Amino acid sequence: MCGIVGVMGAEHAAELAFLGLYALQHRGQEAAGICTVEGGEVHLVKAAGLVMDGFDDQVLKGLPGTLALGHTRYSTAGGAGLVNSQPIVARYHQGELALVHNGNITNAQQLRRGLVAEGALFQGTVDTEVIVHLIARSRAPNIDGQIRHALSQLTGAFSVLITGGDALYAARDPWGYRPLVLGRLDAGGWVLASETCALDLMHAHYVREIEPGEIVKIQDGEMTSLPALGRAERIAPCIFELIYFARPDSVVWGQTVDRTRRQFGRQLAREHPVEADCVFSVPDSSNSAALGYSEESGIPLELALIRNHYVGRTFIHPTQVGRDFRVRIKYNPVREVIEGKRVIVVDDSLVRGTTSQGLVQLIRDAGAREVHLRVASPPVRFPCFYGIDMPNPKELIAANLSVEQIREKLAVDSLGYLSLEGMLDTVRGNGASFCHACFSGDYTAPLVDLEEGLSVSSHC
Amino acid sequence: MCGIVGVMGAEHAAELAFLGLYALQHRGQEAAGICTVEGGEVHLVKAAGLVMDGFDDQVLKGLPGTLALGHTRYSTAGGAGLVNSQPIVARYHQGELALVHNGNITNAQQLRRGLVAEGALFQGTVDTEVIVHLIARSRAPNIDGQIRHALSQLTGAFSVLITGGDALYAARDPWGYRPLVLGRLDAGGWVLASETCALDLMHAHYVREIEPGEIVKIQDGEMTSLPALGRAERIAPCIFELIYFARPDSVVWGQTVDRTRRQFGRQLAREHPVEADCVFSVPDSSNSAALGYSEESGIPLELALIRNHYVGRTFIHPTQVGRDFRVRIKYNPVREVIEGKRVIVVDDSLVRGTTSQGLVQLIRDAGAREVHLRVASPPVRFPCFYGIDMPNPKELIAANLSVEQIREKLAVDSLGYLSLEGMLDTVRGNGASFCHACFSGDYTAPLVDLEEGLSVSSHC
Amino acid sequence: MCGIVGVMGAEHAAELAFLGLYALQHRGQEAAGICTVEGGEVHLVKAAGLVMDGFDDQVLKGLPGTLALGHTRYSTAGGAGLVNSQPIVARYHQGELALVHNGNITNAQQLRRGLVAEGALFQGTVDTEVIVHLIARSRAPNIDGQIRHALSQLTGAFSVLITGGDALYAARDPWGYRPLVLGRLDAGGWVLASETCALDLMHAHYVREIEPGEIVKIQDGEMTSLPALGRAERIAPCIFELIYFARPDSVVWGQTVDRTRRQFGRQLAREHPVEADCVFSVPDSSNSAALGYSEESGIPLELALIRNHYVGRTFIHPTQVGRDFRVRIKYNPVREVIEGKRVIVVDDSLVRGTTSQGLVQLIRDAGAREVHLRVASPPVRFPCFYGIDMPNPKELIAANLSVEQIREKLAVDSLGYLSLEGMLDTVRGNGASFCHACFSGDYTAPLVDLEEGLSVSSHC
Amino acid sequence: MCGIVGVMGAEHAAELAFLGLYALQHRGQEAAGICTVEGGEVHLVKAAGLVMDGFDDQVLKGLPGTLALGHTRYSTAGGAGLVNSQPIVARYHQGELALVHNGNITNAQQLRRGLVAEGALFQGTVDTEVIVHLIARSRAPNIDGQIRHALSQLTGAFSVLITGGDALYAARDPWGYRPLVLGRLDAGGWVLASETCALDLMHAHYVREIEPGEIVKIQDGEMTSLPALGRAERIAPCIFELIYFARPDSVVWGQTVDRTRRQFGRQLAREHPVEADCVFSVPDSSNSAALGYSEESGIPLELALIRNHYVGRTFIHPTQVGRDFRVRIKYNPVREVIEGKRVIVVDDSLVRGTTSQGLVQLIRDAGAREVHLRVASPPVRFPCFYGIDMPNPKELIAANLSVEQIREKLAVDSLGYLSLEGMLDTVRGNGASFCHACFSGDYTAPLVDLEEGLSVSSHC
Repeated sequence: MCGIVGVMGAEHAAELAFLGLYALQHRGQEAAGICTVEGGEVHLVKAAGLVMDGFDDQVLKGLPGTLALGHTRYSTAGGAGLVNSQPIVARYHQGELALVHNGNITNAQQLRRGLVAEGALFQGTVDTEVIVHLIARSRAPNIDGQIRHALSQLTGAFSVLITGGDALYAARDPWGYRPLVLGRLDAGGWVLASETCALDLMHAHYVREIEPGEIVKIQDGEMTSLPALGRAERIAPCIFELIYFARPDSVVWGQTVDRTRRQFGRQLAREHPVEADCVFSVPDSSNSAALGYSEESGIPLELALIRNHYVGRTFIHPTQVGRDFRVRIKYNPVREVIEGKRVIVVDDSLVRGTTSQGLVQLIRDAGAREVHLRVASPPVRFPCFYGIDMPNPKELIAANLSVEQIREKLAVDSLGYLSLEGMLDTVRGNGASFCHACFSGDYTAPLVDLEEGLSVSSHC
Repeated sequence: MCGIVGVMGAEHAAELAFLGLYALQHRGQEAAGICTVEGGEVHLVKAAGLVMDGFDDQVLKGLPGTLALGHTRYSTAGGAGLVNSQPIVARYHQGELALVHNGNITNAQQLRRGLVAEGALFQGTVDTEVIVHLIARSRAPNIDGQIRHALSQLTGAFSVLITGGDALYAARDPWGYRPLVLGRLDAGGWVLASETCALDLMHAHYVREIEPGEIVKIQDGEMTSLPALGRAERIAPCIFELIYFARPDSVVWGQTVDRTRRQFGRQLAREHPVEADCVFSVPDSSNSAALGYSEESGIPLELALIRNHYVGRTFIHPTQVGRDFRVRIKYNPVREVIEGKRVIVVDDSLVRGTTSQGLVQLIRDAGAREVHLRVASPPVRFPCFYGIDMPNPKELIAANLSVEQIREKLAVDSLGYLSLEGMLDTVRGNGASFCHACFSGDYTAPLVDLEEGLSVSSHC
Repeated sequence: MCGIVGVMGAEHAAELAFLGLYALQHRGQEAAGICTVEGGEVHLVKAAGLVMDGFDDQVLKGLPGTLALGHTRYSTAGGAGLVNSQPIVARYHQGELALVHNGNITNAQQLRRGLVAEGALFQGTVDTEVIVHLIARSRAPNIDGQIRHALSQLTGAFSVLITGGDALYAARDPWGYRPLVLGRLDAGGWVLASETCALDLMHAHYVREIEPGEIVKIQDGEMTSLPALGRAERIAPCIFELIYFARPDSVVWGQTVDRTRRQFGRQLAREHPVEADCVFSVPDSSNSAALGYSEESGIPLELALIRNHYVGRTFIHPTQVGRDFRVRIKYNPVREVIEGKRVIVVDDSLVRGTTSQGLVQLIRDAGAREVHLRVASPPVRFPCFYGIDMPNPKELIAANLSVEQIREKLAVDSLGYLSLEGMLDTVRGNGASFCHACFSGDYTAPLVDLEEGLSVSSHC
Repeated sequence: MCGIVGVMGAEHAAELAFLGLYALQHRGQEAAGICTVEGGEVHLVKAAGLVMDGFDDQVLKGLPGTLALGHTRYSTAGGAGLVNSQPIVARYHQGELALVHNGNITNAQQLRRGLVAEGALFQGTVDTEVIVHLIARSRAPNIDGQIRHALSQLTGAFSVLITGGDALYAARDPWGYRPLVLGRLDAGGWVLASETCALDLMHAHYVREIEPGEIVKIQDGEMTSLPALGRAERIAPCIFELIYFARPDSVVWGQTVDRTRRQFGRQLAREHPVEADCVFSVPDSSNSAALGYSEESGIPLELALIRNHYVGRTFIHPTQVGRDFRVRIKYNPVREVIEGKRVIVVDDSLVRGTTSQGLVQLIRDAGAREVHLRVASPPVRFPCFYGIDMPNPKELIAANLSVEQIREKLAVDSLGYLSLEGMLDTVRGNGASFCHACFSGDYTAPLVDLEEGLSVSSHC
């Protein structure tokens, strides 16, 4: 998963891109990059780690211009190192190209194979390079056509921002897997970002989502749409953005994330009630769902786990304090709240289950009499090929164990997952169709590379 | 304010000290230091910034031994630079001394004047150096006596840990301003820390508080108490630790911080009720109080402000996004929760009022119909001379304006502070006597330097 | 100018490449890079600054394999930044390519224009990228053919080392502008380097030069020659390597550099005798020539200028010590040797003349009665297009002033340059033909880009 | 060994101190420090490594004022780390003290023992801290008296610069072991430095040496002398400064170093003639002596060893290139000069003999028929207690082997050392008396710590 941001027609565009990335930091902490275009020249800075660690006033001063792209990278998938971080910048026959990408292209390896056979040179291993080569080799007569031609060859998930010449292009794949929203600055410029919380910090007004399959072009202050990419059979925005990934203050797929999670918590309480003394969240990701559960069930909300917000990269491997160090360094229980109580712990999702296992142990050590775990999403049983960096199916706890077996393994008194139907009913109010392949195995866009036995490329 | 930690008689003592500091990171983010003693030799590492940034496995490997002291520093008061960070280490006639200190000594300048006149050389400006010189110059026949002699000359706030020879000493001033707790490791060693949350992460069992005026000595696995320092007229543990400073999962002054703050919130609701649609906190410091307010008033709790936890040191000064950038980079409102509502915002305390002013604006911009601010502590009207780094009285909003004037300045529809009596009643259940000078001006320990017109020394 | 090195079939190849680069450090101090190939995978490290600053045991450990290429870069021409430093590594249809290059390709821009028109993407601006693209696009059936095809399209100066598959290729342009020598390790591997001083430090035996137009291939321990590139009208090894660039302990163009410079000094004494008390060099570059002048003239040699060898990048711009700071920080005169004397200063060459001007002033300030400047090469009047990073003709002192005018400008009592004929006679003993275009304007290889009005590309 | 510099009454004093240290870099590469005093406040920066690496325009801007001290540190003796580097700065009853020191105090441990017994606290282990404590504890009525009182308690070698209040003090021990010269700036300020080459780069005129036992005070633009320290039985300036340590362009003990070394070389030729084809130096330290030997003997001078001036700290330990790597990375022979010849190698001194052993091997490998080693100083048989960082006597080759045994060990055809008498005759022209204890064992100042069995302190 990654966060992307674009700015067009604003003074100090790099500064705005920085703010946007800063608001999108939760979408990727591995590396950050910003490029600007001025007078046909591209200025680029990439840095490992947090946006704030790599950029300051001095660095931003070296990024002049009114057009900027930014990217914050989630994982080292696709190979570690800045060579695989974004923006990707290259010189081609029409000038300088720069590109940022969030998603995962399901035919990237197949396309790469063809390009390489024709003499294309690659620097790294990310999908994004494939798009740049497709643009450079397109025989379409102008940049508009070259970009459209390139994107139309892709299957899978992509929300992209591209600069070429003096225009900024924004596009989403026909299925609309990953979000991308458009905003407008008071002073007249345009901004694009993965989530609305980035617009807020950039002081931009939300205009609308880029539509699935849409290619938007911004030039000379005007926004136009190019002919759309082919329609998908059904649109499939990722429901995991609502469950876990997006920030609660963002509006995603037309709904406020906090409100949706609250509804998930309420529905969960209806599906899996239990008698208990209190309910609490695993802060901060399940705060909304826990509050919803408490409201619906009438069981009092507590703040029983304290999260240490100074957790970053720990290069410490203590020899003295046991296996559950990774959990304990992040969460500490409030003993007085838990001791002797029957407690309900609400979590947003259960992927590997290792953190939950540590947490349950922590809560038991703090004296809980009963521990009831409630998960505000269905069991994750399938890998994601559209941009979420899920572990190998062998590590997905629900792909290998039944709910009862998971309950035993986590050593909880009861375990309840939100049902797929319950979840979809909650959000279906607005007539939406979603991708829920990680729960259902119902993959929408074709998995070309997978079916051809090619190594599946990296999410970004 | 600072956090301190000591470890005695444990393998990999530096590693435990690291964990302790890590749990105490909220008490100081300016600099961190750890020293160990092995075979009479002191090993010392100090680093600017967070504990995690300065220490890793490699660094800890260079800190051998079973005795360690750690310190995390709050501010640059006393002069920036590592020369004023701790532990302070020095060679004197009995060998190596190392010392960490949390508090503020009210006669430090007077003592320093005397020492300098006798030819003492100082490296930096922190109080802690004074204590080391007093020990070195004491004519008492042994280290026990020298340390007791030195500490008995001090007035004001000090929780200190000192190593000399093969013993570890822990002491608190007779008033007991700052916390210091003792824990025991399963494997047999002892640990000391500012708060119990550090014991938790070090996997140590809470034993008891070090008492006001007590000097404890740990040697050869045994803990003994030296003759106590003179008794104070009344003990005066800092109530601000409960209000804001300590972590909610810590037990401070015999009570769980989260529970106490919940009671403050409930009492606040009784003292300052108002009709509204929802109540919410300024995360995370007022989470407990807001929940208490909601419970007592029956007004639903909401999660209306989202905090960006990647906020660290920003070296960015945006030119494009307005004055309230510092607030907005940290908090973002959930518009759908706030829009058109009458909201109650609960904050833990109001010092300068600048952050609150920004927040109120943010909440109004998100469409709140009415904004009612409730503060879960009394108006801060006086400076602290016992270790809390309060701003100059000129900057204390309540030292200069009446409650009504503050309400106007913050542009809220109503403003209510918890009363001093209400607050004290809430905690008085356990017969405690507290320092509440920042609210009442009722200073307990004599303010020697202040009265002599000497510059008041730094808090640490 | 740059230095290149290759290692094939040796344990710890990266370590040997490091030593080779270290010996070639005088050919470039801007950046250094080493890559190794193991099991078809390329490992690459580049670092700004000196070889020694960027590489240590730890870094070399991350460069496994028995095949290594190394490069040390002279200037920021071609654009600053590591993107333009070497080795250049890319993925193409046959696997991984890596390439290092010393020289300057005179039709690089023309070739680049063609490649870009076909959809090639470029990362940086150095010539070397062009070669990689030509290889990737060649339709020759195997790597041997692709490399030969690519190189045959180039005009100008190139000594290159290329790895593709499990073979190492070494080639020189048909004119043979830049040196490249082959050596053999006792243990059986092969090494290639710009100068023999690198072979010495790698403990390799000198075998022979790679011939002008030759392409050598090393694979499975065997060395073979591919069909040569087309013959040049006449070979043209760079005489400036003998005058200034190469290290005196190297054997270049079949002769020891120190011996050649000694002969230049002797010839200079014959052409421009003068009565004086002593002769001295500008250390260390003219040591050999000054000694030759002294021997031939019988005038005693002195060590009158002391060079500070700690000079590196100075980021100091003193406000107090005058314009000639840059010279004085590097050289200091021995006053007692100079005071009251008639002195002959021998320099190896005169390019801009600014350093000489500062030096003459320094020598006069030290009390010299007469200053006679002797230059052991002819006046530099023309730019180099074959790899030496000469300044713009406007800055070449001899392109703009007569010898007498230069004498006046430098304020010396007499000035003598070695004649072109004298210089060539000295080295012609071994039947050699040289490039002396910077003195004579007699350019051998066609200057394609220059004639087409394209920006001339960078030397490396 | 160390280099020191002081500046008084000059704009941008830190900048001048930087230049002075830069010229004295050969006296210490371990660490550098500069402090300035302005308005009674001291500004201090220390950095590991070369002066140029630690200081730039930005750093110097943070060192305001017209009074500066600088220090460049030779070795890690006295314990690694910046705590033992200089200037030493401390606060005492009269204000701020700052001090730089070159030398070695032979009763430092004894004095330290006394100070510690009285309650003095030490930070590090260098002698310099002792001086600061002695000043702080002196009961003399003013700074002049305190400094004189402190210095009069010391035995051994010290050239010191001290700032206290608004004055700068410079002093040398009564024996005058280490150099210290005074210079004057055109603009009116004063400078002090270890060697005259520093005055040259600071654009200062040489005025005179500070005399043995003299204490000079500079204040308000005036220089005065305080009453001298007690007279030594005989003065004993270090002759090793002339042999090896000082730069050839410096005037030390009243004579130009280059000229003196030339005389050593001539005398060596007279004492140890041998038939040979050429003579050459080990660059750069024996250049002057080799030239002298050539002149006197009539045997032609050659440049047979090329030194790589990029040698710095190598963190490389090659596994493939043999034991003599350390020598070969620094020197490379010119084979054509050496092959088949009878050569004379002139070195300045022989301490451990390990480098010479490597060099001789290198020369033999290059094909020399005979190798004759000539050393331009007597055999080093005794440790230095006055500031030169000699190895342990067990490692001094001449303390353990006869000249014939050394010849055998180094595998040279003949070996000749300059005689002590010959050396002293050469310099005695100016009536000087020298310390030559490292050759003769004739120690002048009492070795108090050594005789009391205390650990001998570090040289600086």
